[in-house]
Amino acid sequence: MHSPSPLTVPPDALFGAHNLPYGVFSTAAGTGRRLGVAYGEHVLDAGAAARATGAPADLTALLTAPSLNPLLAAGRPAWTRVRGALTEWLTADGHRAAVEPCLVPRADVSLHLPFEVADYVDFYASEHHAANLGRIFRPGTEPLTPNWKHLPIGYHGRAGTVVVSGTPVVRPSGQRKAPADPAPDYGPARRLDIEAEVGFVVGAASPQGSRVALADADAHVFGVCLLNDWSARDIQSWETVPLGPFLGKSFATSLSPWVVPLDALSAARIDPPARDTEPLPYLDDRAARPPYGLDISLEVRLNGHVVARPPFAAMYWTYAQMLAHMTVNGASLRPGDLFASGTVSGRDRPTRGALIELTWNGGQPLDLPDGSRRGFLEDGDEVAISATAPGPGGTRIGFGEVAGRILPAR
Amino acid sequence: MHSPSPLTVPPDALFGAHNLPYGVFSTAAGTGRRLGVAYGEHVLDAGAAARATGAPADLTALLTAPSLNPLLAAGRPAWTRVRGALTEWLTADGHRAAVEPCLVPRADVSLHLPFEVADYVDFYASEHHAANLGRIFRPGTEPLTPNWKHLPIGYHGRAGTVVVSGTPVVRPSGQRKAPADPAPDYGPARRLDIEAEVGFVVGAASPQGSRVALADADAHVFGVCLLNDWSARDIQSWETVPLGPFLGKSFATSLSPWVVPLDALSAARIDPPARDTEPLPYLDDRAARPPYGLDISLEVRLNGHVVARPPFAAMYWTYAQMLAHMTVNGASLRPGDLFASGTVSGRDRPTRGALIELTWNGGQPLDLPDGSRRGFLEDGDEVAISATAPGPGGTRIGFGEVAGRILPAR
Repeated sequence: MHSPSPLTVPPDALFGAHNLPYGVFSTAAGTGRRLGVAYGEHVLDAGAAARATGAPADLTALLTAPSLNPLLAAGRPAWTRVRGALTEWLTADGHRAAVEPCLVPRADVSLHLPFEVADYVDFYASEHHAANLGRIFRPGTEPLTPNWKHLPIGYHGRAGTVVVSGTPVVRPSGQRKAPADPAPDYGPARRLDIEAEVGFVVGAASPQGSRVALADADAHVFGVCLLNDWSARDIQSWETVPLGPFLGKSFATSLSPWVVPLDALSAARIDPPARDTEPLPYLDDRAARPPYGLDISLEVRLNGHVVARPPFAAMYWTYAQMLAHMTVNGASLRPGDLFASGTVSGRDRPTRGALIELTWNGGQPLDLPDGSRRGFLEDGDEVAISATAPGPGGTRIGFGEVAGRILPAR
Repeated sequence: MHSPSPLTVPPDALFGAHNLPYGVFSTAAGTGRRLGVAYGEHVLDAGAAARATGAPADLTALLTAPSLNPLLAAGRPAWTRVRGALTEWLTADGHRAAVEPCLVPRADVSLHLPFEVADYVDFYASEHHAANLGRIFRPGTEPLTPNWKHLPIGYHGRAGTVVVSGTPVVRPSGQRKAPADPAPDYGPARRLDIEAEVGFVVGAASPQGSRVALADADAHVFGVCLLNDWSARDIQSWETVPLGPFLGKSFATSLSPWVVPLDALSAARIDPPARDTEPLPYLDDRAARPPYGLDISLEVRLNGHVVARPPFAAMYWTYAQMLAHMTVNGASLRPGDLFASGTVSGRDRPTRGALIELTWNGGQPLDLPDGSRRGFLEDGDEVAISATAPGPGGTRIGFGEVAGRILPAR
């Protein structure tokens, strides 16, 4: 009697052969950070596998780095070669003896930020989310600003405070002022929120002064991850006019440890929702085949209870439109640039990806099955966001999760 | 007859012994990028000087890097040691023979971005600038937003498009919409502007979840540089509500090649202007000795003609307040973080650091001595921003300049 090979992964696994997401791991045994690929309940030590299978030197070098950045920079032809090699190593019988020793149980590894974030841009691409925030903050006016359907609204966030899933988040302090208060005071944020988002990892660079067309988006986008864009609503609302969110967001943004390759999402491509405003040509994706919408289903858990199931399929703007817009002014791309969708919210209450929408700015608190009630986050609360998408042949693609627990303010 | 030693620098030199700004240079002869210190009309090859003088290995390593980042990360005790060593090498007779060969004429070097920019934050710290923009864009209302005197307003910019002085800037394209237009159109920015700013380079890191107090600012701020935050006003005005400036700014930000150490600015410290709003304790610098205000005099030239002399002494918020605010929510600092003041504008028209203020949104164009007239920038225009500050003993500290020329849209 012996345990089954770690290379035997059932066809319904979320980290099956059709997925092969990339991450960076270490083990208690040391030897530092290594590039890994999630496969079933294991992580493939990608550099060790390259060496064990006698892979070409350039490919081995990309997989032996302690972060994804060299692979990101190498561009789509390299991404295709590496994915082909990984598929071969994990699924062809001839490599079994060489590859099996390179698999480490997932339970035995620590996961790290998979790449060094260059610039981080956060968009606002859900019509439902943007309209809900308009209704909450500007009642009696048009929920969407006049520009919203003409361009994907976005802003730069703080790259240096992007942390990997599992990193505790200290409740931020700052200036808080309710509209009725005569002056701001200073203290811990009282309205600490989440934003369930999908993030896109830029691989190949683009030069300053030129733009990336919609049709070239996939030459630059390496993969997809999950993000929790923690938001202190009281700090944010006081600071945000006229230059936008700053300290209400910059204390922490949590990232899932696994980057799902765009190549794994071919079966998840769908048309985005119908749009009622004519896009300018550089954003017009109506003829794109395959389309750029992605059918990713998110799930948000608060202290273990599911509180929302946001559908990424409902997003008004696609990742290709975000990228085309972000570079239309000639802004360059660097390997490791990260851009996120903004809160993913669907039409109905149980599909909203932020507490401010789920509880209507705290006025309609959530009653959790354990008898507790939440308007916004309390110290000790743990939030976990996970997602899946359709894979080829009836399989499912898993994104793992991005989780974090709130520590009291210092 | 022989030429004077490059070590002989007159006491009124802007790059004299009291300044010693850091940069990164290369020469046509090759050998790559090297750390340099401007001295008179020369650049000291700092790594070569460390080796030639037999400096300790750790100090030599910091000065042999191809960027300032290792020195930035080393922290203030290392900055003090390095500055002491440089002063010794350049001014003590005993090192003359060793150091002279390490000096390269400034005219013979190419200058590069002096450090890798981690996160870039842009503030809005001039009351005159913020009030002028309020008057232009929101006539008939309070010029300043209600939060302006309670906190230094800021936002994150794009670190990846910060370029060194001399890099041409391609006119950005994007969505433009005047208030009276029914819909936006796409094309090159028509209202391309400058923003003359002072930038602060963060050296020592701080951990996520803790804050940097006002009194600790100088343990983290390494030095000071000049910035031109190019701004496409038409793109910016259409996109900016609700999340702030994005593509109107992210195409390019130009940086001066020389970073003046904070240590060189002790004689430039002044009290900031009187403030009429009680600051919260974490921003209260009224007892600080020495004060954090800096008496830096800027000069803006357009195609060689001086068009403005903005006084940094007039800034409402100081660099220490910007840093304390930026980290009050627990946001971490990384070596290479760059934060800038926002446009430096004084009270009177000739002291305003942006064309939108100098020409009152283009309605009062500048008449230049060459007979040309400018509301905003035209293709081929060259903008250069320089600055000086008081040094010890009646000397002057030079910042060099940040310059850039506009190329036509692609």
